[in-house]
Amino acid sequence: MPDPEEVLTRLAATIAARRSADPKASYVASLFAKGEDAILKKIGEEATETVMAAKDGDPRRIAMEVADLWFHCLVLLERYGVTVDEVMAELARREGTSGHSEKAARER
Amino acid sequence: MPDPEEVLTRLAATIAARRSADPKASYVASLFAKGEDAILKKIGEEATETVMAAKDGDPRRIAMEVADLWFHCLVLLERYGVTVDEVMAELARREGTSGHSEKAARER
Amino acid sequence: MPDPEEVLTRLAATIAARRSADPKASYVASLFAKGEDAILKKIGEEATETVMAAKDGDPRRIAMEVADLWFHCLVLLERYGVTVDEVMAELARREGTSGHSEKAARER
Amino acid sequence: MPDPEEVLTRLAATIAARRSADPKASYVASLFAKGEDAILKKIGEEATETVMAAKDGDPRRIAMEVADLWFHCLVLLERYGVTVDEVMAELARREGTSGHSEKAARER
Repeated sequence: MPDPEEVLTRLAATIAARRSADPKASYVASLFAKGEDAILKKIGEEATETVMAAKDGDPRRIAMEVADLWFHCLVLLERYGVTVDEVMAELARREGTSGHSEKAARER
Repeated sequence: MPDPEEVLTRLAATIAARRSADPKASYVASLFAKGEDAILKKIGEEATETVMAAKDGDPRRIAMEVADLWFHCLVLLERYGVTVDEVMAELARREGTSGHSEKAARER
Repeated sequence: MPDPEEVLTRLAATIAARRSADPKASYVASLFAKGEDAILKKIGEEATETVMAAKDGDPRRIAMEVADLWFHCLVLLERYGVTVDEVMAELARREGTSGHSEKAARER
Repeated sequence: MPDPEEVLTRLAATIAARRSADPKASYVASLFAKGEDAILKKIGEEATETVMAAKDGDPRRIAMEVADLWFHCLVLLERYGVTVDEVMAELARREGTSGHSEKAARER
């Protein structure tokens, strides 16, 4: 069973390595070659697909679509120089708090 | 700082525990009380906020918005009985592949 | 200068006529052939592109992306048997009200 | 029922008039007071709600959510100085073309 953060960290490293690869050979490189909007468009697209899979109540597709969404979030993080650790630190803040105080924490 | 290695798994457990809490005391419980659409709406909302933070080129806000998006994805996973491990298994598949073959893997 | 609702009504009729055309010859027919999710995915995609064009502050692209979004909304309306008139009737209700009472009207 | 022929144009004028109203008395003014991101966030939110209503196959809610989405598009157009006529001119271009050539037109 894969360690969640190990998978994310390794995948982030793979994405960083592919960033400057041949766009014809690498999907990640092709996204970077197309530019910022191509990456951001995928966030909106995969979020919509996640919502549709949930509405269909299909657990297998939900897992795949959330994975697609997170994958493209990793591409976005690489694009803007943000690390997975920074996202995890934010999530850890939420974990430490509780109930609506936690919502307030998110809104700060 | 909490151990980043376990953040997602621990946060998923916290969300599961809060699911049936008093909606007045817990943000997570309030989302579950409002029902499916309230959770899914947050996916669309946080995805849009992620795109806006990226367009503003603000790394700190990008980290926070991606964390918000992933947090609500964890709520969605809990709602539909999908585990973080299942998402990680999907992401691990992507990590093992490369280039456009990796995109094909995502599309399977 | 085109009359807004005339354009929308005519375009809706064109979409209805193309619905059963050859998917290879018609973009609209190809969306219907791919099914519900292909149409809905475009709503999420074009909404994201509208947000990006706005963030870039580019009026020409904003007009184009809102047009794209509305175009795919017309495809969605045709898919589910909802008329442009029904949407306009809803919008007219909003127009008749004012301020926050208008928001309450939307939430009813 | 108000004349559907002029709903969009009249609603756009109403939005323009409310823009500088008291944010406590007007929903539109409150969106403008909160700033650009509050408006754009609604685009993502209402697009997601449209997708959810479609997935539920509820024609009445589809009409309402598309109306909500278009209403907030009108707010966005006002925010960036784009007229309904400019959007209609774009849509009229699509109406004049056909099939995949029409898609190409959209992509220009």
